[in-house]
Amino acid sequence: MSDAIFSRLAIVGIGLIGSSIARAARQNGLVDEIAIADLSPVILERAEELGLGDSYHASAGDAAESADLVIACVPVGAAEAVAKAIAPHLKPGAIVSDVGSVKGSVVRQMRPHLPDNVQFIPAHPVAGTEYSGPDAGFAELFVNRWSILCPDEATDVRALDRLVAFWAGMGANVECMSAERHDLVLAITSHLPHLIAYNIVGTAADLEKVTESEVMKFSAGGFRDFTRIAASDPTMWRDVFLHNRDAVLEVLGRFQEDLFALQRQIRWGEGDKLYDLFTRTRTIRRGILTLGQDAPEADFGRAHRPVPKAPSE
Amino acid sequence: MSDAIFSRLAIVGIGLIGSSIARAARQNGLVDEIAIADLSPVILERAEELGLGDSYHASAGDAAESADLVIACVPVGAAEAVAKAIAPHLKPGAIVSDVGSVKGSVVRQMRPHLPDNVQFIPAHPVAGTEYSGPDAGFAELFVNRWSILCPDEATDVRALDRLVAFWAGMGANVECMSAERHDLVLAITSHLPHLIAYNIVGTAADLEKVTESEVMKFSAGGFRDFTRIAASDPTMWRDVFLHNRDAVLEVLGRFQEDLFALQRQIRWGEGDKLYDLFTRTRTIRRGILTLGQDAPEADFGRAHRPVPKAPSE
Repeated sequence: MSDAIFSRLAIVGIGLIGSSIARAARQNGLVDEIAIADLSPVILERAEELGLGDSYHASAGDAAESADLVIACVPVGAAEAVAKAIAPHLKPGAIVSDVGSVKGSVVRQMRPHLPDNVQFIPAHPVAGTEYSGPDAGFAELFVNRWSILCPDEATDVRALDRLVAFWAGMGANVECMSAERHDLVLAITSHLPHLIAYNIVGTAADLEKVTESEVMKFSAGGFRDFTRIAASDPTMWRDVFLHNRDAVLEVLGRFQEDLFALQRQIRWGEGDKLYDLFTRTRTIRRGILTLGQDAPEADFGRAHRPVPKAPSE
Repeated sequence: MSDAIFSRLAIVGIGLIGSSIARAARQNGLVDEIAIADLSPVILERAEELGLGDSYHASAGDAAESADLVIACVPVGAAEAVAKAIAPHLKPGAIVSDVGSVKGSVVRQMRPHLPDNVQFIPAHPVAGTEYSGPDAGFAELFVNRWSILCPDEATDVRALDRLVAFWAGMGANVECMSAERHDLVLAITSHLPHLIAYNIVGTAADLEKVTESEVMKFSAGGFRDFTRIAASDPTMWRDVFLHNRDAVLEVLGRFQEDLFALQRQIRWGEGDKLYDLFTRTRTIRRGILTLGQDAPEADFGRAHRPVPKAPSE
């Protein structure tokens, strides 16, 4: 007898998040068996080389067959295709979930295709790195990070409890909220930051008066912080902006308004107003550190290396 | 006989940068004697407790007396006051420098007050952390970071060579450029990133629909990266924006233009254009890693701690 929460876990899409779930679920004894599916034969083969699961499937439906929990770990633009593929194979009582950064769109894409006798509970672990693919995942990715679940009135409480226990078993804190609220909250804490980071890196690359070489050399003045986020997976992020359009445009409008006010303060030399904002923003940083959501070490704890190492050499 | 490059170094302002220079200069044997001045009696006393120098002075002039190298390590808005204070005390042939993030304004503020028989060579080490004060400094801060020097036609070559050797002795790479060019390059690699970071943190704090608690909890989705920079010293950064107004407004204009284009692409669902930008921005990140200007470890190498530690408890 095992203490596993689920007997068979199916992971559809074995990238950074999918492979981190596979590792964390295995390491913490949360499942008996892991079935892995991926559209890409190359990635599926790599997952097998890494020994991330017990079986490997080109078809999401085959992986979902007789699974107790199926998690779609794909860009949000692919959610509907996954729902269609797994629907005919789902066993009664199975839980279907996902890890997408947008929840309203995922619900609209998946719900209509899923049978009534399964529990559909969308989820989003707010965790990640700038790297992609099955090699990039690690078992500790979700530790002390929040995973947001979006049950609705129809969700079975026991199914919800099991999914909460699964995420908690991987070290995550769990919070439930509506898909709509999730999409607004994440628009400001994740989507807008990515948009701004992509944008400033693009602006820097396009300046005629400053060379790319100068931008890279002197990036330690602050710019480099943005380039990490702007190195995130392009497909995933394209889909986020296309699928959370309204909430992103809403917070972007606020950002623009505030930025114009700041621009005006600089133009007119209103130092007091600048100082006030720059003092206020420190409070939020302190709150994040108190919550353990970032490292208190200076400069993110980056190593200050005596000898530069170029990864390309 | 010592191998020191300078006999007496005077540091005016013993915050993050000043105290890092004190530590690095001592550790690398670059100077025989360090004289420290600070306007704040509390900070001066702390510097003495930390043993950062050989003598401690309430007056910048006293510290500068008989110094071979005087470095102003103050917010750029205080540059003129330092020049006035040290000018009557400078010995002939002394080198006067600074570490300000803006160079054109510093030249305009300091040059008129300095005697003709000293060498004035503005400098800017592109390095720092989000913490301030004499405790925040460390000897390795400048290792493998660029320090920019801004000599002009009148600069004595031997004086420049000695200052280059001093920065190289602390582990820095040195590059020379005009003050005007510096201010444009840093506007994009440092000043605009800080402005954007301050702005997005302000926007998030002011949203009525999302609570500060939610912003902090779910900050690992990207937002937290910006809060580090937005926790930087408010006085220093107020002065940067007031003193590099034109270059900041120029690159900010470009940023805004690009952001409106991106906003429009999101509104009209132009996924291909989003994908193209998000792919292009990865190249810049790779270049920064190749130059050793950031850590290749995922997520800046942040620790993924099994047990959350709240610094306030």
